[in-house]
Amino acid sequence: MTDLQRFSFNQITAKHATLRECAEACVRHGVRWIAPWRDRVQEAGLSESARMLRDCGLRVSSLCRGGFFPAATQAERQARIDDNLRAIDEAAALGTDCLVLVCGPAPDRDLDAARSMVADGVAALLDHARARRVRLGIEPLHPMFAADRSVIVTLAQALDLAQRFDTELAGIVVDVFHVWWDPQLYAGIQQASGRIVGLHVSDWASPLPGILAGRSMLGDGVIELRRIRSAVDDSGYRGPVEVEIMNESLWSSPIDSILDQSVKRFLAWV
Amino acid sequence: MTDLQRFSFNQITAKHATLRECAEACVRHGVRWIAPWRDRVQEAGLSESARMLRDCGLRVSSLCRGGFFPAATQAERQARIDDNLRAIDEAAALGTDCLVLVCGPAPDRDLDAARSMVADGVAALLDHARARRVRLGIEPLHPMFAADRSVIVTLAQALDLAQRFDTELAGIVVDVFHVWWDPQLYAGIQQASGRIVGLHVSDWASPLPGILAGRSMLGDGVIELRRIRSAVDDSGYRGPVEVEIMNESLWSSPIDSILDQSVKRFLAWV
Repeated sequence: MTDLQRFSFNQITAKHATLRECAEACVRHGVRWIAPWRDRVQEAGLSESARMLRDCGLRVSSLCRGGFFPAATQAERQARIDDNLRAIDEAAALGTDCLVLVCGPAPDRDLDAARSMVADGVAALLDHARARRVRLGIEPLHPMFAADRSVIVTLAQALDLAQRFDTELAGIVVDVFHVWWDPQLYAGIQQASGRIVGLHVSDWASPLPGILAGRSMLGDGVIELRRIRSAVDDSGYRGPVEVEIMNESLWSSPIDSILDQSVKRFLAWV
Repeated sequence: MTDLQRFSFNQITAKHATLRECAEACVRHGVRWIAPWRDRVQEAGLSESARMLRDCGLRVSSLCRGGFFPAATQAERQARIDDNLRAIDEAAALGTDCLVLVCGPAPDRDLDAARSMVADGVAALLDHARARRVRLGIEPLHPMFAADRSVIVTLAQALDLAQRFDTELAGIVVDVFHVWWDPQLYAGIQQASGRIVGLHVSDWASPLPGILAGRSMLGDGVIELRRIRSAVDDSGYRGPVEVEIMNESLWSSPIDSILDQSVKRFLAWV
């Protein structure tokens, strides 16, 4: 990337900062986009967050996150859907057209049943998503999260799910950390043309610094970041690119250092 | 499983034991098959190991392991191939017809090039495999090992590679830990009919106890062990089923406890 026009700062990259601290740091570093997480929005208040981000001149690339559809009982599944409906409202209030969905694990050993629950859950959100003009971004997670975060684990599977619904309502989010290993990656990105609603970048260092917090700064790992970004561009996506890095060592850095590294590495590697 | 006819004890499940200690423990627990690792065979001596296992009445389900084909230079790639040729000799000397291949990571960021090196490496072994009557068992590894263990990460990809070569020379090894998450798992097992040369079992607990040593005792995780084993049976495979569990806590147990747990859980869950 030659400039920061498409750079978005995903708030989890500075996990210990409040939304306001993130937003003000973004402004100091010339960043135009931010992707807040729901817990930090709730902490600051929804309308206060929306106003504060507007006042900072920041646009919201996506809201993280909805999803987690599968559950053992119908009542619990409905509670998850209700929470996703609220997340759609929050996304609309923040002025973003993308709600990221991390689809959730199975409540037992039955992956097939859980995958059906995910499809049913997404379907239950469509009317509200249409009314609020929010697009649902189904994010396939790395298969190492299949037991505890998402039964949707490949680009092809996420695309197959999204394609059951209208293009303007359901798309997929490509996070390089989750999909870089896939032998079908580039074919899948091409097939997803018109359905990609978000691109997240981080890196895969070896050995991994962890599982849940296993991501590394851009350029510190083995992912062909520019090749994947170019392939996503070629598929027609021209929206913001979120830097989303969960890493204990990075989290312990001052926020200006986090932003400074993220911006420089983004320009060098993405 | 209703008996131990197909039970095989993969030696890494008792990592701290010698091959002789493993073999004698297998005999005490009514186990008929064993899968040794090359380092433990080398430690005991090849012909001594073969004789000792025969004297114990144990059959060898596979030798672990060959592979690790990609490397930065032609000389290093040839050295890897030479090592695999020796592994084929060792497999033949031990009386097994299966050499498990863990194909290796890329030497850089280029997955495509590394995957070509794997295909070239397997191809370079075929004549020797035919002469020694050893089948090459290409094992897809979990995508979380894509950066440090194997660029072959799905059943479909392993099958595609195996199918470039004669059926009697190249097959695939299904390890449930590596493939359980795959939305194409059961379709892939069916498509692999006639090509499956090994089945490895362990379990995926959540949270994972580690990455390299992240496996759990059968029944302690979320994998549908019996369903996968039945699908592999239905594809026509009727050979040994290796219990292969890399787990620090299990490794610290006495070997008779490891065998006792493995046998009981195998009968209950596989």
